[in-house]
Order: sequence, then C-alpha cells, then structure tokens
Amino acid sequence: MTPQQPLAASNARVKDARRLSRRSARAERRLFLADGPKAVEGALAVPDCVVEVFATPAAREHHAGLLGGAPVTLVDDRAIAALSDSVSPAGLVAVCRFLDLPTAEALTDADLAVLCADVRDPGNAGTVVRTADAAGAAAVVLAGDSVDAYNPKTVRASVGSLFHLPVAVERDVGAAVRAAQDAGLVVLAADGGGEVDLFAADDLLRGPVAWLFGNEAWGLPDDVAALADHRVRIPIAGAAESLNLATAAAVCLYATARARR
Amino acid sequence: MTPQQPLAASNARVKDARRLSRRSARAERRLFLADGPKAVEGALAVPDCVVEVFATPAAREHHAGLLGGAPVTLVDDRAIAALSDSVSPAGLVAVCRFLDLPTAEALTDADLAVLCADVRDPGNAGTVVRTADAAGAAAVVLAGDSVDAYNPKTVRASVGSLFHLPVAVERDVGAAVRAAQDAGLVVLAADGGGEVDLFAADDLLRGPVAWLFGNEAWGLPDDVAALADHRVRIPIAGAAESLNLATAAAVCLYATARARR
Repeated sequence: MTPQQPLAASNARVKDARRLSRRSARAERRLFLADGPKAVEGALAVPDCVVEVFATPAAREHHAGLLGGAPVTLVDDRAIAALSDSVSPAGLVAVCRFLDLPTAEALTDADLAVLCADVRDPGNAGTVVRTADAAGAAAVVLAGDSVDAYNPKTVRASVGSLFHLPVAVERDVGAAVRAAQDAGLVVLAADGGGEVDLFAADDLLRGPVAWLFGNEAWGLPDDVAALADHRVRIPIAGAAESLNLATAAAVCLYATARARR
Repeated sequence: MTPQQPLAASNARVKDARRLSRRSARAERRLFLADGPKAVEGALAVPDCVVEVFATPAAREHHAGLLGGAPVTLVDDRAIAALSDSVSPAGLVAVCRFLDLPTAEALTDADLAVLCADVRDPGNAGTVVRTADAAGAAAVVLAGDSVDAYNPKTVRASVGSLFHLPVAVERDVGAAVRAAQDAGLVVLAADGGGEVDLFAADDLLRGPVAWLFGNEAWGLPDDVAALADHRVRIPIAGAAESLNLATAAAVCLYATARARR
C-alpha cells in the first residue's frame, strides 16, 4: 500500500478510531471523535487538541483551506461512514483529545456560566453548549449524571461550540454549585416554581451569574434548586406547562445578555 | 372475545390505527395519533377531536381522571407498543382528527403569530409549537416544505401544545406572509444578517407581529427574508455562528413577550 491509498473500514487504525464511538473507550483513552467540517475546524483552532484527521480524498480537497497543515489520514467512503455518526457524513472526522478542565479552573474569571444538572439527552447538551457560546457565557459545567460531553450527538449539536469555551465535568451537582459560588458567581436555578420572575430580574442578571438547569423530564429536584442563591421562573403565557430544556436555557441566557447590553 | 378483553397488536382495528404512523395514511384519512398522557389530555380538551383512545388496562386505571368519559378501547402492551412512537410507551394513544385551520382563519385576531418556512425536523417543529404556546403566541403556520404537523415526533415534542393553539399548513411561504400582513401583523424574519437588532426592537415587538423562521440548515433564503417587513438578527456574542432553530425561536418569542410586559 502506498501512503496515498485511502484506508478501508477494515484497516486497524480506522477500527481503532471507531471504538471511540463507545463512551467506555473514550473515557479510557481520553479521546473522542469530531465529525464534520464545523467540528473539525473548531478542534483545529484549539492548540494540541487534534491527534489526526480522517478524510476522504474529496473532502481533503474540498476543505484544504480548513485543514491547513493538520495531520490528515486518507480513508475511503465506507471508512468515513464507519467513523461518522451522521446519516450523511461530510467526509471529515478528527480524533481529538479531551478538553474538559477542572471545574474551578473552567469557572475562573467567568461572569456568566452554565451548570447542567443531570441533562441526559446528548442533543440537548450540545444545543445548550452552542447557546451558551452564542450568548457570551464563559464556561459550561456538565454536572451530576449528565450525558457524556464527548458523545458524538453532543459534539454535533454543539456545532463547534464545544471547542469555543471551557467545559468541565463534575459528578457532584452540589460541588458544581459551590465552585460557582466560590468563583464569585450568583447561582440562579431555572425553576418553573421560582420566586424570581425572569422579566423582573435585570438587576440580578447584570451581576456575575451561573445558570443552573435541570433534567429534561423532571427539571431540578427541590433539594438541588435550594442550593442556588435564587430560583428564577420563565413566565408561561399560554396553556403550555413548561419549556424544553434547551429553549429554556436560551431564554434565560439571552435575557442575561440583554440585561448586560 | 368479551368487550373487556384487550385487543392484540394483530387486531384489525389496531392495525388500522397503526397505519396512521405513515404520512400518506394520515393525509388520506385526516387522522393522526396522539401518544402519551399529555397529548391525550390536550386532544380530549378540543371538542370533537378524539375519535377513540387506545389504552392498556393499567393506563386506563392510572389515567381514569384524565380520560373521563372518553371512548376507550382496551389493548395489550404489544398493541400499544405498535401504536406508539416512543421507546417507553405510556399506555395511552388517541386517534385524533386533523386540527389545522385555513391560514387566514388561524391568524384572525392574532397579535403574535409564528410562521415556519421549510422546517424539516419534526422535533424542532414540535418544540417551536410548544414555545409559541408558552410565549403567548396565538397561532403557528407551518409553511412551504415543512414537516408534517401530525408526525408523531412533532406531536410528542409539542407536549400537548399542538392542541392548545390554532395551527395552519400553507404550502406557499409567500402566501403565508401575505396572510399575516392581511391580518394586520408586521412580519419579522429571524435572520442572522438582519438590519434590526433584536435587543433594540422593543417598539416593534410591542405591536402585532408574526415571526418568520427558516430551515434548520440554511435559514431563510434572501428572497424569502425579503418578503418580511423587517429582518431581525439575534446578537451573537461568542464564537458560535448561529443558534439552533428552536432556540432562536425561543429567544425571539420571549423577547416579544418581555417587550409587551
């Protein structure tokens, strides 16, 4: 085989990378897969993050500007399909080193942060990271029994934002809340029964805050919401009982960005 | 078979209802399936919407208050699994009549409406309907080549909201925009390159408006955005290029609700 020959799905290096679609393999090797041009571009912008990029010959040509001098391994279409979680793979998958920082370090100097407690859906977690980035948050902490930050669906839903801001993983939700408070942040629990009305919270939102969001199905248990400094409710006008987690996070984070304008 | 015997998945009535998981069968019969207690509760609150409810004996007992005098057909667990789109069926599925109104009728007297152009993901469409309901919108129009409003994933993601506010289906996006304008609404296109800053649009948002949202991947084409009265951009603070459709809709709709407070 010449170096120019694209590797097949049966190649040992491709099979080895493919194992990273399993959480246990990711955790053991502290490596994950970034799929598609947005994610690969984000990963390449982080120093020392990308181990190698698998690309089809067509994708390498099409994305030459994005790839620059990155270490590219050519693979065939079946190999890229095996590495990609997408139904229509874009031809680029990067093997990346884990990015998460210790919680206290991720929150250092943050004046807006996001704490997710027990967020289980990978798409939701990625969308929250994307929204936090867009709203100007300085860090995201995935706390408690939350989905793996490096799940391929989370990486994809973040559309590159996983590489744009510090992310931390903290098994103990209480420890995440205390770390935010220790970093000088006022912790606001998003809670349908909260005592503060989001539309009347601008004074609070102009200060340094960390938003605490709960699980998709059951929100924040009372004892977890009680750890926050305040509990803030999003006004509901119609017959809906609540908002989806990612949309609730967007409303809270953009209310914060707006208050600071 | 006695009337009390739960029907099996092989029963002709169950198989007939199951066909409604296909769009073509729904369109032909103008019937769809509402899965789970939230959706069934919403459907039962709409006069003349529910044809019948399939329930397991356990679910009928557990949800007796919700079901009231509704026409319930008992089925076994495998039958409910065949009717349900969920990985963990809650034991209740209602056969419902289509709810959509003609666009002009849905928009009558609306002072806040949502127009979706070419929204393709069923979960996104349902989440937009849920968010529109929560923010106090009076109607949602699924326009252009949008996903079927009665897709099981759309119904589930709306968490009952599909039954709470008028929904219209309009193949021609231009006709949906004109109908909104004819109803006295100022049409605002959510557009990353828009000339109006959302954070400086309160005067506009206090008046009667219809928000126009585009496709998940490519947003609104320029010629469609040009049909709106104004194009409004959500400020992006970080390195993210854009927001997910449902979160963008949440930010715009809640900015509107806030401006009207």
